[in-house]
Amino acid sequence: MIGRLNHVAIAVPDLEAASAQYRDALGATVGAPQDEPDHGVTVVFIELPNTKIELLYPLGEDSPINGFLEKNPAGGIHHVCYEVDDIIAARDHLKETGARVLGSGEPKIGAHGKPVLFLHPKDFNGCLVELEQV
Amino acid sequence: MIGRLNHVAIAVPDLEAASAQYRDALGATVGAPQDEPDHGVTVVFIELPNTKIELLYPLGEDSPINGFLEKNPAGGIHHVCYEVDDIIAARDHLKETGARVLGSGEPKIGAHGKPVLFLHPKDFNGCLVELEQV
Repeated sequence: MIGRLNHVAIAVPDLEAASAQYRDALGATVGAPQDEPDHGVTVVFIELPNTKIELLYPLGEDSPINGFLEKNPAGGIHHVCYEVDDIIAARDHLKETGARVLGSGEPKIGAHGKPVLFLHPKDFNGCLVELEQV
Repeated sequence: MIGRLNHVAIAVPDLEAASAQYRDALGATVGAPQDEPDHGVTVVFIELPNTKIELLYPLGEDSPINGFLEKNPAGGIHHVCYEVDDIIAARDHLKETGARVLGSGEPKIGAHGKPVLFLHPKDFNGCLVELEQV
């Protein structure tokens, strides 16, 4: 069912410093910051040959990653995103196996303009999993 | 400098349950457990079309992930591994930028039989980074 690893998201306390580090210290291709007000984050994409790293920084007081950065002030790996062909079929299959879908259970349009869902980290080894229909 | 994302490692408290979940609930291609006594872990590789997920479970009392699972009993994302062409050149460049290399600073042979180094998570947004020479 799951396909490619679309991205790994890393929440960071200083977006400019993290971008500079990936560009200068790690020598990666780093994009410009993009505000995603619907998702409460500013993101920077790091393009690797086979996938992306998504640096996440809070945008606004209700940002969903404020709590994560309070618990992890230095930052940390926030989630992994797997691609699926049919997000409704994937959701229904996962629910049958007992996995919990976060929120209303209906896909939202994610930061890349595609339908996404998040799965409960307690059901996936402490790992927040995003599914994105591609 | 960094190339492909070689893998994302997820430490899990129950390797059999996590393998079954990736196979049955997420529908992924899941390998057999492999003991890596030199690294104090048993690993299960999950093959995605563009990269791998590495499930990690402690092997022995001195396993380097015992402490992680004590802090995160449900499991969690443990590290990301980026590929490099020349691990000594990468290490020397990173040290010049102020990043700390864990351990002796000399590459060890990793679970895939290739030279690896780990970078201090405090220098990388709370994210443990492995470099693997490919």
